[in-house]
Amino acid sequence: MVRWEPDSRGRLAQAAMALYAERGFDDTTVAQIAQRAGLTERTFFRHFADKREVLFAGADELVACFVSAIESAPPTATPIDAVACSLEAAAAVFAPRREGSKRRQAVIAANPELQERELIKLARLAHAMADALRRRGVKDPAATLSAEAGVTVFRVGFEEWVRPATTTELSQLFCAALSELKAVTAGR
Amino acid sequence: MVRWEPDSRGRLAQAAMALYAERGFDDTTVAQIAQRAGLTERTFFRHFADKREVLFAGADELVACFVSAIESAPPTATPIDAVACSLEAAAAVFAPRREGSKRRQAVIAANPELQERELIKLARLAHAMADALRRRGVKDPAATLSAEAGVTVFRVGFEEWVRPATTTELSQLFCAALSELKAVTAGR
Repeated sequence: MVRWEPDSRGRLAQAAMALYAERGFDDTTVAQIAQRAGLTERTFFRHFADKREVLFAGADELVACFVSAIESAPPTATPIDAVACSLEAAAAVFAPRREGSKRRQAVIAANPELQERELIKLARLAHAMADALRRRGVKDPAATLSAEAGVTVFRVGFEEWVRPATTTELSQLFCAALSELKAVTAGR
Repeated sequence: MVRWEPDSRGRLAQAAMALYAERGFDDTTVAQIAQRAGLTERTFFRHFADKREVLFAGADELVACFVSAIESAPPTATPIDAVACSLEAAAAVFAPRREGSKRRQAVIAANPELQERELIKLARLAHAMADALRRRGVKDPAATLSAEAGVTVFRVGFEEWVRPATTTELSQLFCAALSELKAVTAGR
């Protein structure tokens, strides 16, 4: 008999995040996650390769969001304008996910191995953005530099956004960080 | 009887780099490195924690070079100027090491795990640079943005420098990459 499991993926992710926050990532097992979600370990492994993947399953979606926004930026947009478009698109995707993003950030901040994984994710994002810029005809090093600037702005804006006291919208924080980067590189 | 081992650290490093290039990093053992250097495994482990450390032993020196240059930049220097000073200092340190840097880069480029380690090293460098800027009174996010801009310029300039066909000096490549970053963020 196959039990109907409405949104088992979402339930597993929610159970995992709750347990990571309560017990720490290292001390949480897949068995505990499945139990908390009222599902089996087998169901967990149908959705996630391991307990780390729960935290990084959204990476491909994030990359795709940035890349497609760069691709569909107006043909006249400069590289940094195309990058700004992609930050705006990403902000729209994250906007309804602030609480989840805060919880995820707290789990990652508490674990050096997860921080390393996050670095690798962001490096992949920068590569994908630079590739998308090259497909628009942007040469190197401009493509790499614009993409890296975009990822830096993403990180700085995002880290501000998930701070407990912050109420500003992510899109505004991205704009502010990009303006600040422009000011800083201009030598102000 | 203690055998005199002149520059055993340097000989081990050289033997390791030669073997990594010949056989690949994964297929090289510490025993082979020691044998090639005419030394014992015990001597290897007196100098390096493991075979990966041969490639990353210079990381602390790199960080110290950037940090001390930021600290000793003129008090009137803007954050990006202080970062430019640190790039110049790093270029002077690397200048006599072009061949070794090329070999190291080739080993790292061939191995995803080493690429990840390199990312982590550069993230540490960015943190240390941002801290040094904060000690100069630079506020956030300007400190983080300037430091990340510096590491991006470092990476772009360095990768160009170790390309087989490149003959330009590293300091010039850093200058060029920084100018390009300024142009890109200014929307050109």
